[in-house]
Amino acid sequence: MAGSTIGELFRVTTFGESHTSAGVGAIVDGCPAGIPLSEEDIQPDLDRRRPGQSRLTTQRKESDEVTIQSGVFRGETTGAPISLFIPNTDARPGAYEKFKDSYRPSHADYTYEAKYGVRDYHGGARASARATAADTAAGAIAKLIVPQVSFTAYVKQIYDIVADIPDDVTHDLVESSEVRCPDPFATERMVALIDLIKRRRDSVGGIIEMRISNVPPGLGEPAFDKYDADLAKAIKGIPAVKAVEFGLGFAAVRLLGSQHNDPFYMEGDRVRTRTNNSGGVQGGITNGEDVVLRAAIKPTPTIAHEQETVTNTGESTTVSGTGRHDVCVLPRAVPIFEARAAIITADHFLRNRSARI
Amino acid sequence: MAGSTIGELFRVTTFGESHTSAGVGAIVDGCPAGIPLSEEDIQPDLDRRRPGQSRLTTQRKESDEVTIQSGVFRGETTGAPISLFIPNTDARPGAYEKFKDSYRPSHADYTYEAKYGVRDYHGGARASARATAADTAAGAIAKLIVPQVSFTAYVKQIYDIVADIPDDVTHDLVESSEVRCPDPFATERMVALIDLIKRRRDSVGGIIEMRISNVPPGLGEPAFDKYDADLAKAIKGIPAVKAVEFGLGFAAVRLLGSQHNDPFYMEGDRVRTRTNNSGGVQGGITNGEDVVLRAAIKPTPTIAHEQETVTNTGESTTVSGTGRHDVCVLPRAVPIFEARAAIITADHFLRNRSARI
Amino acid sequence: MAGSTIGELFRVTTFGESHTSAGVGAIVDGCPAGIPLSEEDIQPDLDRRRPGQSRLTTQRKESDEVTIQSGVFRGETTGAPISLFIPNTDARPGAYEKFKDSYRPSHADYTYEAKYGVRDYHGGARASARATAADTAAGAIAKLIVPQVSFTAYVKQIYDIVADIPDDVTHDLVESSEVRCPDPFATERMVALIDLIKRRRDSVGGIIEMRISNVPPGLGEPAFDKYDADLAKAIKGIPAVKAVEFGLGFAAVRLLGSQHNDPFYMEGDRVRTRTNNSGGVQGGITNGEDVVLRAAIKPTPTIAHEQETVTNTGESTTVSGTGRHDVCVLPRAVPIFEARAAIITADHFLRNRSARI
Amino acid sequence: MAGSTIGELFRVTTFGESHTSAGVGAIVDGCPAGIPLSEEDIQPDLDRRRPGQSRLTTQRKESDEVTIQSGVFRGETTGAPISLFIPNTDARPGAYEKFKDSYRPSHADYTYEAKYGVRDYHGGARASARATAADTAAGAIAKLIVPQVSFTAYVKQIYDIVADIPDDVTHDLVESSEVRCPDPFATERMVALIDLIKRRRDSVGGIIEMRISNVPPGLGEPAFDKYDADLAKAIKGIPAVKAVEFGLGFAAVRLLGSQHNDPFYMEGDRVRTRTNNSGGVQGGITNGEDVVLRAAIKPTPTIAHEQETVTNTGESTTVSGTGRHDVCVLPRAVPIFEARAAIITADHFLRNRSARI
Repeated sequence: MAGSTIGELFRVTTFGESHTSAGVGAIVDGCPAGIPLSEEDIQPDLDRRRPGQSRLTTQRKESDEVTIQSGVFRGETTGAPISLFIPNTDARPGAYEKFKDSYRPSHADYTYEAKYGVRDYHGGARASARATAADTAAGAIAKLIVPQVSFTAYVKQIYDIVADIPDDVTHDLVESSEVRCPDPFATERMVALIDLIKRRRDSVGGIIEMRISNVPPGLGEPAFDKYDADLAKAIKGIPAVKAVEFGLGFAAVRLLGSQHNDPFYMEGDRVRTRTNNSGGVQGGITNGEDVVLRAAIKPTPTIAHEQETVTNTGESTTVSGTGRHDVCVLPRAVPIFEARAAIITADHFLRNRSARI
Repeated sequence: MAGSTIGELFRVTTFGESHTSAGVGAIVDGCPAGIPLSEEDIQPDLDRRRPGQSRLTTQRKESDEVTIQSGVFRGETTGAPISLFIPNTDARPGAYEKFKDSYRPSHADYTYEAKYGVRDYHGGARASARATAADTAAGAIAKLIVPQVSFTAYVKQIYDIVADIPDDVTHDLVESSEVRCPDPFATERMVALIDLIKRRRDSVGGIIEMRISNVPPGLGEPAFDKYDADLAKAIKGIPAVKAVEFGLGFAAVRLLGSQHNDPFYMEGDRVRTRTNNSGGVQGGITNGEDVVLRAAIKPTPTIAHEQETVTNTGESTTVSGTGRHDVCVLPRAVPIFEARAAIITADHFLRNRSARI
Repeated sequence: MAGSTIGELFRVTTFGESHTSAGVGAIVDGCPAGIPLSEEDIQPDLDRRRPGQSRLTTQRKESDEVTIQSGVFRGETTGAPISLFIPNTDARPGAYEKFKDSYRPSHADYTYEAKYGVRDYHGGARASARATAADTAAGAIAKLIVPQVSFTAYVKQIYDIVADIPDDVTHDLVESSEVRCPDPFATERMVALIDLIKRRRDSVGGIIEMRISNVPPGLGEPAFDKYDADLAKAIKGIPAVKAVEFGLGFAAVRLLGSQHNDPFYMEGDRVRTRTNNSGGVQGGITNGEDVVLRAAIKPTPTIAHEQETVTNTGESTTVSGTGRHDVCVLPRAVPIFEARAAIITADHFLRNRSARI
Repeated sequence: MAGSTIGELFRVTTFGESHTSAGVGAIVDGCPAGIPLSEEDIQPDLDRRRPGQSRLTTQRKESDEVTIQSGVFRGETTGAPISLFIPNTDARPGAYEKFKDSYRPSHADYTYEAKYGVRDYHGGARASARATAADTAAGAIAKLIVPQVSFTAYVKQIYDIVADIPDDVTHDLVESSEVRCPDPFATERMVALIDLIKRRRDSVGGIIEMRISNVPPGLGEPAFDKYDADLAKAIKGIPAVKAVEFGLGFAAVRLLGSQHNDPFYMEGDRVRTRTNNSGGVQGGITNGEDVVLRAAIKPTPTIAHEQETVTNTGESTTVSGTGRHDVCVLPRAVPIFEARAAIITADHFLRNRSARI
């Protein structure tokens, strides 16, 4: 089974390469009928993800204008598959001829060739983060299925700069930061650090945190398709993500059961927990508290330094990245986190409709 | 789509509750024909997982004897589905009557009831770690599909005791430790700590690390079914796991690209990397280096302390756990990690057969 | 993807061989919680399918007593997977040694060996109709999800004897016939014919018709998972079925559009059709009229005649079937038709819950 | 799970409506890497399916020019998803305003509205046979995975005119007939009949037969995903198909086992059958003989006659079809049969790679 599909009932199948395809896109199958939908519901999320938003990001210029090609009639979904298309308008395949025979370290160059025997060496091709524009567009539709749920991701840490996140973090606060970090002082330091690293022609990673609020209790399908397990897969699968944790995550190791357990209490007729060390999920099923997760993002592998590597004929050589890339991908990854979380949540929302007779 | 199945081509579907079912089991569908198989290939892994191995674990007594019910003819797999059954012989449903109406904090009691409207309140029922006996049995079969691959998990940390893991950790070294930690001095301290916490009637978590060696390059199906993303889901889905990281994981955040990238070199005619910060996966596809992951396990929620909670009719109350439970589940979780990793690896091994014409 | 699973949301995975396994069984995953269920809901359908009901069928003696092993708590489904087990009590593997090396004509002996390289030669093994006991049990659960729908299959034709089916055919009328044909005069002639063919040591096929009433409009997921397409697959997959037709089926070829179209009219506030040439489905989606299908069943390949064949080492030889088999499988296939139709209908009923927001 | 995907390993997901979408298309995921592919491999099959090939078919003018949008690099598949797009250039949505409120008899108008609550009333929208252009394009790729297999469909019967099919029917012979019937005399009569029915402003159906040659033995995944069961689903799902039969099909009913069984013999070192009453499949797995199937196609529901129907507000009314439609869809359905059969065959070819260790 090929791996270009995410979701079971709300199913998103994507395609497209960074430079060699006409564009990137997705078929969204299983979207319920009767949802008002137009390009205007999708474009804002794409605008947040697209390159060229600030001097900190890649200078590739893509307007990332999405077209809905099917599945909508008179402004409403019909239950038919929704095809989304985003053209590539600033592809520069020529820029990658130098990597034709050599594997860039910590890129997917070698592994794709090991797997498929052929390799489209233009800017990551299918492995490029450009493909996530399609996820982002599909995620905007997913959000319309669970409009009560809010997905708020933001930069929590870059290198050693840890932001102080307010309890009531809002999308506006996040968007007001050039690096999508809802802490103005940390933002200033992060911007300065990214500038410094850019001058060193190096790259840097960090931590993105996401808070999903107003998730209905009951989402998740044990034993294997748990809500947080599916989220872990979706987030881990975002390019450059190396780790995912929920609730206290690794910090839970330093608490005893009596400290970690979340006591229940009633808030009106709603079951709540006093603490939320569990991160909104118990036994793989949402409990109605905020789902909280954090992910580690490695430093972008594309750097201008000379690096040791080999060619596809087994010769030793060196490569150095050039061209248009992000020194720090975290700000642009924020909407991708939200999109994938929305896809998983919409999917589990629909799956949960079969939980009871 | 209900969530009791893991794998696409090598498909494992499990069933069974902790106390109310006759046993737990699995149907393994998609196992290639021609593999020698008997119960003796499976029982050793079950023996490692089963309760009652030491005074540190639950005192529930289960021999966990597996029966192969179908799919094997004259000692060889036939391509037909393999049914595995492990009877429950020491179930004590009566012990859980006190939890009939109250939700144990940080257990799945409330979320199952919120989802399904009914709740089997006997020892976690379907949410119990007992269900992972079935995964463990299926994992033993998976290992036979990729016999060249070794899966070695072990306890890396309990509470604040961090083990020193030798480079050449072996299964024997792991098994020689009462807590499955391949560091004798750390083992002694961990045993003492667990004893202490047991006397305090509390519980404790930690970190399990797993090293998967000799994985063929090329496993993984981007964009969504990446090898490490599927592993993340499988491991995150093990009861009590709250975080998963690959390679350097969260520590990658504190390196620059020039430090984190893994340079390629040739070792004979094999492409290798000088470092393995990537943890054996690049772009979601294995590169032939060891796959290394770590997971955080929360402290067992069952503790004997009096805890605040509510009843299923919305009344405030308290509960305290009793009976037979593990103060620290990590030693028994080690074989479950290996089993789930084997299932994912066998599945991707078969899926990879379609990568090229 | 191995083929032992049917259904997407209501998922049935089966296992078991005719003689070499402990029994046959199924895991039913995705059954909604809150449905009263015990073995007594399942056994009657198994009793209708099991061998030894009359002198016309195989003399193998199986009580086919089903056990529910999991997924039910205090008489109600919990949402957890339901494991069903039916032991083999009258297996006689020894009876098949003579077929060890030779392929019985029009059996699955050769094709299984061509596919898997190994062959369990005992009475069809996995290819045996015995495996359908598991489907039948699972179908009984499926019926509880759509209790308003009635599934009525019956023998329409054996060889050249065509029954006259009353409009108001009932289960009781079908069951009152020794060959499950709701036409007493045809029944008499069919019984006589089967006796004659049995004496000739030959076998015979026929046509089963099924009427599914009170199906809610709206079931079916175009473009590929149409309700009738899924039914076609499920029915075609029953051993010995060679053809499936819906509504007028092949007879539609001899009508013009003006004769074949089903005019709509209102019956109260319900949309009805004057005729039902479409067989209850238009565009792959149910319209609320009865779904009507017919299937051709080939004569049982097991006959006592000497037949030309080859061995698995490529030698010419002959075989003749012996032992306990059905001269005419149609009467026993009737409950299998209903079971598979119920599985497809329950699955589409749940899938349809996602059609609208 | 929404129904716009066909295939498990070779997966085709389609989209697009007849008039309201920009075009129709498909994502082909799971195509192995290393296959030479360009639009020229696909266009010929589309040309055979597209409207306007003769005066007998709809006068809608579509050039059906396909574009490969992704997944191909330097003329070769890369393993990445292949996106195919076929623009709608002659859509006339205005022509369907008259059907806005009324259900055309035996069309999918009512059932779509019953299911989804909304209805795109323009020429069948998603239910239109136009959507099968996408299948046809995907099928052309599927054929490249199993290049040794030939798929030859043709018109066997229209109304009461039954063609005499030569044993060595070829694509050229089929294409030389204006109605894709490889019997010149039958062709003449069929053309005359279609002309007559066109003048009567009525419509007519018939039977398509397909012969799949050189299928490798071993394809098919029992118990549920049998090769012929999957074909039955794929063919039954083609718009207007009401019945599918394999081998002798319904005629098998009139043979005894001794007559129907296919004796085995050796042809060199290949196992063959003397007859092919089974239609190339035994136990759901191919035996290497030709797979032969026939399907009944109902008369096109669009006719110019005044017909009784109701509105979507429950009023009685009448409708009569107008505009550009096929009086007899069979000639244009021929390439769709071949395409869907190729998709199923390529999928099972890849699935069979996991049958043995």
